[in-house]
Amino acid sequence: MSGKKKFTIGIDFGTQAAQAILVDVNNGKLAASSLSKYAHGVITKKLPNSSVELEPGWALQHPKDYLNALKRTVTKLLSDSQIAAEQVIGIGVSFPGSTLIPTTGDGTPLALLEAYKEDPHAWPKHWKHSTADTQADQLTKIALDRFETFLDRYGGSISPEWFFPKAWQIFNESASIYHAADRLIEAADWMVWQLTGIETRNLCAAGFKAFWSKAEGFPLETFFSAMDPSLGDIVEEKMKRKITSLGEQVGELTESAAKWLKLNPGTPVAAGILSSHAAAPAATVSEPGKMALILGHQFTHMVLSSKEYRVPGMCGMVEDGIVPGLIAYQAGQVSSGDHFSWFIEHGVPGSYEKEARKRKISLFSLMEEKAAALQPAESGLVALDWWHGNRSILVDRGLTGLILGYSLATKPEEIYRALLEATTFGTRKIFETFIASGVPINEIIVTGGEPVKNNLLLNILANVTGMEIRVAETSHASALGSAMYAAVAAGESRGGYNSIQEASQKMARLRNKTYIPNNNDKKTYNRLYSEYTLLHDYFGYGHNNAMKRLKNLRDTILIKKK
Amino acid sequence: MSGKKKFTIGIDFGTQAAQAILVDVNNGKLAASSLSKYAHGVITKKLPNSSVELEPGWALQHPKDYLNALKRTVTKLLSDSQIAAEQVIGIGVSFPGSTLIPTTGDGTPLALLEAYKEDPHAWPKHWKHSTADTQADQLTKIALDRFETFLDRYGGSISPEWFFPKAWQIFNESASIYHAADRLIEAADWMVWQLTGIETRNLCAAGFKAFWSKAEGFPLETFFSAMDPSLGDIVEEKMKRKITSLGEQVGELTESAAKWLKLNPGTPVAAGILSSHAAAPAATVSEPGKMALILGHQFTHMVLSSKEYRVPGMCGMVEDGIVPGLIAYQAGQVSSGDHFSWFIEHGVPGSYEKEARKRKISLFSLMEEKAAALQPAESGLVALDWWHGNRSILVDRGLTGLILGYSLATKPEEIYRALLEATTFGTRKIFETFIASGVPINEIIVTGGEPVKNNLLLNILANVTGMEIRVAETSHASALGSAMYAAVAAGESRGGYNSIQEASQKMARLRNKTYIPNNNDKKTYNRLYSEYTLLHDYFGYGHNNAMKRLKNLRDTILIKKK
Repeated sequence: MSGKKKFTIGIDFGTQAAQAILVDVNNGKLAASSLSKYAHGVITKKLPNSSVELEPGWALQHPKDYLNALKRTVTKLLSDSQIAAEQVIGIGVSFPGSTLIPTTGDGTPLALLEAYKEDPHAWPKHWKHSTADTQADQLTKIALDRFETFLDRYGGSISPEWFFPKAWQIFNESASIYHAADRLIEAADWMVWQLTGIETRNLCAAGFKAFWSKAEGFPLETFFSAMDPSLGDIVEEKMKRKITSLGEQVGELTESAAKWLKLNPGTPVAAGILSSHAAAPAATVSEPGKMALILGHQFTHMVLSSKEYRVPGMCGMVEDGIVPGLIAYQAGQVSSGDHFSWFIEHGVPGSYEKEARKRKISLFSLMEEKAAALQPAESGLVALDWWHGNRSILVDRGLTGLILGYSLATKPEEIYRALLEATTFGTRKIFETFIASGVPINEIIVTGGEPVKNNLLLNILANVTGMEIRVAETSHASALGSAMYAAVAAGESRGGYNSIQEASQKMARLRNKTYIPNNNDKKTYNRLYSEYTLLHDYFGYGHNNAMKRLKNLRDTILIKKK
Repeated sequence: MSGKKKFTIGIDFGTQAAQAILVDVNNGKLAASSLSKYAHGVITKKLPNSSVELEPGWALQHPKDYLNALKRTVTKLLSDSQIAAEQVIGIGVSFPGSTLIPTTGDGTPLALLEAYKEDPHAWPKHWKHSTADTQADQLTKIALDRFETFLDRYGGSISPEWFFPKAWQIFNESASIYHAADRLIEAADWMVWQLTGIETRNLCAAGFKAFWSKAEGFPLETFFSAMDPSLGDIVEEKMKRKITSLGEQVGELTESAAKWLKLNPGTPVAAGILSSHAAAPAATVSEPGKMALILGHQFTHMVLSSKEYRVPGMCGMVEDGIVPGLIAYQAGQVSSGDHFSWFIEHGVPGSYEKEARKRKISLFSLMEEKAAALQPAESGLVALDWWHGNRSILVDRGLTGLILGYSLATKPEEIYRALLEATTFGTRKIFETFIASGVPINEIIVTGGEPVKNNLLLNILANVTGMEIRVAETSHASALGSAMYAAVAAGESRGGYNSIQEASQKMARLRNKTYIPNNNDKKTYNRLYSEYTLLHDYFGYGHNNAMKRLKNLRDTILIKKK
């Protein structure tokens, strides 16, 4: 019986580690899972084996870490599960983006070549890499000046984490690397290239991170040459115009890759995809009317729609971007999960740490417990969740965080709760903006990392949005999504599926436990939300630009201090 | 030689302890000092030796604590210094106010009588006692409705800490205590009564806490009967219309008191005074043009002027209130010092506590060191210092605190520094309001408790106000001030002085070390102050009443929770 079962492998290359899973194609059940940490994690201070130091805001990764994690996890999946290689009918990979790798024509990362390894720009730029902000702002300005309509699909503003700001930064700051790079490629596509020997560009990353659309393709050469005349041909020279759909089979596992991974050559490999987007169908979101809310360092919101609506302040709107035939919308709260970690690290007094140690629970659990004992509005606090700016719906990196309502009786758990609440107010703003723009949402399904374990957060989310909150069963949504796209790439003939909707119906499930709003708390949160909105609009729409002036002053002071 | 020297004793009855000093009248030098903690401190939870519990906001004290501290400190001063009782030419006492004691006709506190000791209203109400807020608000309303001009001398608003709100609260909540109390008296006057057998009412407390003025006396009976018809005669029945000037000799030490304290009977006793006000001449502020800034849990600002100006948002304006012949103005920042303690207790992570322990320094010192390593504006933060409302210049208890500018890089020492800065911005607002109202200030002299030890705070204060900051030499300004008024009560004939100015010139000194502003920091702080002002005016003048609505909602929630 087990000999006949078919399995796919999904691997999500996260920030600090790769998570791989082997799942039963028939029902999505986990046969094995394996996590492999990157030896170098995110490189922010110094290049590996080098004395070259990085400026603040830099975030690089090591291509060898990706390959090592691939080999370790995949071989472990098979040895742990004792499932035969021939039962594996597909492989799918996901990466957060834009994670940009400059390579030679054969796909060798420049970072691995002696000639370039001392230049930071030779290294893969992790999506978190944020020093292309000048380029991002200039690109936004160019697009505005040229009345580029594509900008509307990205909330009217270009983010430094995206493909072209990063590419332009390479060109500006290290022309030799730019010219040595035959290819500039997303990490997911690079990984697929390693597996199949075929260079492709996946629709999800091209659409959400590189301005490509099904209707219009990439922006015109004149747009790119407005950056610099020599960049006019960047797509021709460094990229590909042909874009691969999601769930499409790019190719098959090569002999050498198969040998290395102890899989069969010829195993279908799916087009790459962005991590958050892969999570949506794994959270059962493969049709209109549902919002997948992916909770991690960031919160990411995915909604599908059969019609095209202009929704203000989105991170991206891409036709076929998650499910072929549907428009995929992405919104984002840029540092929601990070707020909580920031507070746990910087805001909890020693006496609390002592209590947590004594009771042998984590500081997160202790704070959740204490905050859960409070009533909504009991603290008198309200916060603006802009510790790293606001992505949706204000699209403004210059904004900063605020807490209002402090008294001498204010306790740490009250501040913690105010941060949880502010985050869900931010989610409600996005949710309401979708609805007001004509995109219906009748269900919210959460998935993701640590914050999903926070019952209090999900309870608050239910009461603030007034919606029942459902939770994806999987703890590895991006990897499961990748495995689901792999099943689509394999196709029905090999034992997979014909569409991601089909795969989603069979392989994705929700937990029984849901979070249901209660009327009293809903009412109280409506009042708190109206305070949030007043502050949101006052500081967010430029009635008082204190946040930006203070940031500007801070930057001036820090430059002088150096 | 030493046999001929003359000394006075000053005793300040603080919140947790009494501080007594014995000083050389000739030069103010300390001959001995003694601190005695109250056994009951501030009583906030339960009456002593009783099961009667107190509501939140209650703050009582034990009259026996005052007497025990008096005896212990005074006898210790003499035994430590080996100075003979006949060399002591005067005694002066100060208390914070309004600390209201209900007594029988012979001065026995009702709290000490079996019949009343189970009623919280029988006990001395410490100035911090804050549950007379309803009465305070109603009194303000009555005064406004009657167009009482005295209200202008108190920033247009009556504070729950003052005499009549507390008296009214007794009447409202415990008529039996109100009727049993032959006298309602300030603690300082009660103490003088114990020493001399003579009941007086000092001008400072009457002026600053009970609406009395030299020109108009107390408000009219019709004002008091507007509270309740039976309160029309409150001054006649429970108080005294005759007010004793500061530095006036009330009487001499009685035989029994002298025996008890091991002093000579006949030793002159000065009129009582409020603690903060006593500190002003001890900080050399006995003439116009100087501001005494008393740094403690609260910050208190004392300025003298020969002419009467209406200064908005003051806590009080009293002719002869500190120095006979001059108008005394008091402003206040209600919880400035408390902000810092609040943060040290609630906002500093365990890793910092560990570092402080390892280096054997206090958490306060560690935070000062870390915050001092920052440049002004480096944090990008700005705060509103309203953790317990705003006294001057907004006179609004409903306001709460705010911090703006948080980022994921924000460190605890940055928040701490933002609180220090916000406090000095609050001081600058007061300072500028005095100047704009016509009251000149050419010097700022600080004195007080813990915050005076904070070099960083005083440095910031210099840069924010743009003024050189000088510091009183004494660490016991209120006690020294009391000793100086005692020297005036003794008079020149007994070896004392004829005026508090003379005493101040001889007995008060400043430290050599001063805090001088530097041009760069001044400029940066001007920019931060403009941000503070924008927020101050937006939230303080009702453009957004979020703070009050949140407080109101919190109160509703807390009542329901009970």
